[in-house]
Amino acid sequence: MSRALIELRRRLAEVSDLESMGQLLAWDQEVVMPPAGAEWRAQQRATIERLAHERFVDDRIGELLEAATPESELDEDLIRVARRDFELARRVPPELVEELAHASSTGHEAWLRAREDSDFALFEPPMRRNVELRRRWIACFPEAERPYDALLDHYEPEMRTARAEDALALLRDGLVPLVEQAAPADDDALLHGGPFPIDAQRRLIATILRQVGAQDRQWRLDDAVHPFAATLSLDDVRLTTRYAEDDLDSIFSTLHEFGHGLYEANVDRALARSPLGTGVSSAVHESQSRLWENMVGRSPGFWRWCFPHLRAGMPERFGDCTWQDVHRAVNVVRPTLIRVSADEVTYGLHVILRFELEVALFEGGLDVADLPEAWADRTRAYLGLEVPDHAHGVLQDVHWAEGLFGYFPTYALGTIVSGQLWGRLNADIPGLDERFAAGDFAPLADWLAEKVHRWGRRLTPTEVVERATGGPLDPGPYLEYVRAKLAGASAGLIA
Amino acid sequence: MSRALIELRRRLAEVSDLESMGQLLAWDQEVVMPPAGAEWRAQQRATIERLAHERFVDDRIGELLEAATPESELDEDLIRVARRDFELARRVPPELVEELAHASSTGHEAWLRAREDSDFALFEPPMRRNVELRRRWIACFPEAERPYDALLDHYEPEMRTARAEDALALLRDGLVPLVEQAAPADDDALLHGGPFPIDAQRRLIATILRQVGAQDRQWRLDDAVHPFAATLSLDDVRLTTRYAEDDLDSIFSTLHEFGHGLYEANVDRALARSPLGTGVSSAVHESQSRLWENMVGRSPGFWRWCFPHLRAGMPERFGDCTWQDVHRAVNVVRPTLIRVSADEVTYGLHVILRFELEVALFEGGLDVADLPEAWADRTRAYLGLEVPDHAHGVLQDVHWAEGLFGYFPTYALGTIVSGQLWGRLNADIPGLDERFAAGDFAPLADWLAEKVHRWGRRLTPTEVVERATGGPLDPGPYLEYVRAKLAGASAGLIA
Repeated sequence: MSRALIELRRRLAEVSDLESMGQLLAWDQEVVMPPAGAEWRAQQRATIERLAHERFVDDRIGELLEAATPESELDEDLIRVARRDFELARRVPPELVEELAHASSTGHEAWLRAREDSDFALFEPPMRRNVELRRRWIACFPEAERPYDALLDHYEPEMRTARAEDALALLRDGLVPLVEQAAPADDDALLHGGPFPIDAQRRLIATILRQVGAQDRQWRLDDAVHPFAATLSLDDVRLTTRYAEDDLDSIFSTLHEFGHGLYEANVDRALARSPLGTGVSSAVHESQSRLWENMVGRSPGFWRWCFPHLRAGMPERFGDCTWQDVHRAVNVVRPTLIRVSADEVTYGLHVILRFELEVALFEGGLDVADLPEAWADRTRAYLGLEVPDHAHGVLQDVHWAEGLFGYFPTYALGTIVSGQLWGRLNADIPGLDERFAAGDFAPLADWLAEKVHRWGRRLTPTEVVERATGGPLDPGPYLEYVRAKLAGASAGLIA
Repeated sequence: MSRALIELRRRLAEVSDLESMGQLLAWDQEVVMPPAGAEWRAQQRATIERLAHERFVDDRIGELLEAATPESELDEDLIRVARRDFELARRVPPELVEELAHASSTGHEAWLRAREDSDFALFEPPMRRNVELRRRWIACFPEAERPYDALLDHYEPEMRTARAEDALALLRDGLVPLVEQAAPADDDALLHGGPFPIDAQRRLIATILRQVGAQDRQWRLDDAVHPFAATLSLDDVRLTTRYAEDDLDSIFSTLHEFGHGLYEANVDRALARSPLGTGVSSAVHESQSRLWENMVGRSPGFWRWCFPHLRAGMPERFGDCTWQDVHRAVNVVRPTLIRVSADEVTYGLHVILRFELEVALFEGGLDVADLPEAWADRTRAYLGLEVPDHAHGVLQDVHWAEGLFGYFPTYALGTIVSGQLWGRLNADIPGLDERFAAGDFAPLADWLAEKVHRWGRRLTPTEVVERATGGPLDPGPYLEYVRAKLAGASAGLIA
């Protein structure tokens, strides 16, 4: 291997280690850190992010990218992806990177207090600061046709605002009437109010995780206020979930995060500690989490397998039920205020609402002070609901508190991709639902590893989607999947 | 502030953050990491350690140390301490640092096998290598009067071998007859064999930690195979302990680690994120842990306060006892072979034995092959015991396997300092034991914070000891403390 390539790989591995360290600092803060440590932690996170950035944008990396002679296709991919990252990263001055990191951490702390008191005034100043810093960040990418393009491209390389607007408008216009027409939701009483003892939930979820393939040697599950997945190495994957006595959302949130974790764990080991060794984009990541959460977690087969475990753990509640009762209940469509506990179908509308507000914030002159009202208006239009307080409205999500703009639309784009993957999966693996019923999730996991996961960032998001699904981004299969499910429900067929 | 001073502070803060990150990587690995992550974690730790070192020994730091104009005593202290660290860190060539690290991890692996089989022959070659590399390391410090001075100075700045020899010989000559005269130990059956349910131990220790001042906002306690304390910031202090059903050592190991943690947590906040913002030396650190473990944890007052909690949690075991019974049992003196489970009084002799052998290895011509015999001879002389096999003798500790020479004596020096502090504390705070009995540990903690902790590294270890205790290093007060305790015991007064 050429000396330049060896040095390039070594330097990229160092940056990758620093990024893993950033993930550890974040995971630790959410899961185990004593709360008083927050201020120092913000500084530690800022330092590690600045260092990772500095070491990556170093002139020497630029020289090595020019000098390195690729000796394989893998080397070519590495150099291509690293060069794109390098050119984009050199655009943002280190001071701004540090300011963003610090504002993100302080915004997070402010959000925790603001949400607790449902007090938008506590949140407005850090939010305003996040928007202002992000505008400075956007200005580093003058070639973007629209300001929001810069935000979107950061999470979804090559995606453009106009394309996302088109796809999400189609999705929205398909979903709104489906939600309006959905049968009155009275079949999910089984899943509400509880009590669902948290110890029993924990045992059930441990059983589910083992069955889908998350082994203790490599995976952890912890509690967090806002569930997330962190990959510290491909042999150290950490999921978090949230338990409540009065619902079973923990199951779906765990499957969701498992989808993210499995993607990272299955990236080709040869790509580890390099810019290629991670998921390719937010939308493709989200297609994985949504697929496990919904296509799997709300399937008849999954509940045929899972129900006996649920009943054994909570016999008082489920002793007189069938798997069909639970399956019907987990598929009820009912507009609610909180995104993370929304049903599968209305979820997309929650996300589209946020996407539209973000575009309005950065391109349409919407002021931060007017966010609550804009939020309420769209909630009324898409979900037919009134927002009673900020905690159930604009303060419910952590993303804006941390300055993450451009991320929300990838949830809906990922939903679209999950529909396309699901269609292809069922064509490729006959009797998939029967396999689930037998507790056999390996064919699904293997297919995803082969078609999506192992590539890491060697392919572009568009290439991954097109190769795995056989076509370009298309909301059709997802709307079809939802329509078939709702038609089955209204015909009494869903279970 | 001068530009040079600002830049110097910023760079030193970065190094300090990287060192905190190293602590987090280590804590995480011991406490929460899924085991499969070990290989990647080793790479992450190597990366962060190399970066912290590289950033600190950078020429630019040297220039700034010359250029910076101190504007306060604090600045002067900072520059003085940072310059000393810088000069020492630049002495050792990176190749030797790497060889030492490699030999340390090979030594560790060999030691695990050797100890398991009680086979010294497996351990001898890596031990020989460690000694040889450490001799090369010593040669990097040609100004040291004696070879062992360089080893000792690394953990205990300004301490010299001759002074340590004098102090530890006095300690040894004081302890040996006390151990010989100690009443036959038959009063500690109460604390052996259990069962002491681990849940009850956890609740008791949570009660103790709250009472001594470790609040959840700032502190954590977790389980670890080898208990340790990690300070990730002065508002994020993490203790670990180990539980066994058949003893109550968890109490003492927690108090020990609490002593370390409290020291770090109480360093003046103005010193945070600088080379001044940590404990000043191994011995002073150990004086804190030993003081909480022994002077507090084995005092009558502590047990008058603690006993009702112990009895409430384990009524079957302690229902018919008094606090005096427990107090007597935790103070029994009985020579045993293993250092880490030794009683308070014999512990010092275990350490002195190791110190004398280290000096003999590096200065006295003792060959590695002759270590087991030398170990057995001294065990007989100081503890009156025969060593049955190497696992209960020379192979019991991990330190030499990892090439850590010069560390052991600081355990005994810390014990000496704890005695001096204890004498001064009781003179300064009348009725200290009564305060403990009332569950009031604040006067003690406040005194330590004021006299020892807050200084961080602004004073030298010698200055800290002299200012806090009113005199130089002196084994007298510790021996007096032990003599009084044993005299009380033999007169039936100890409880």
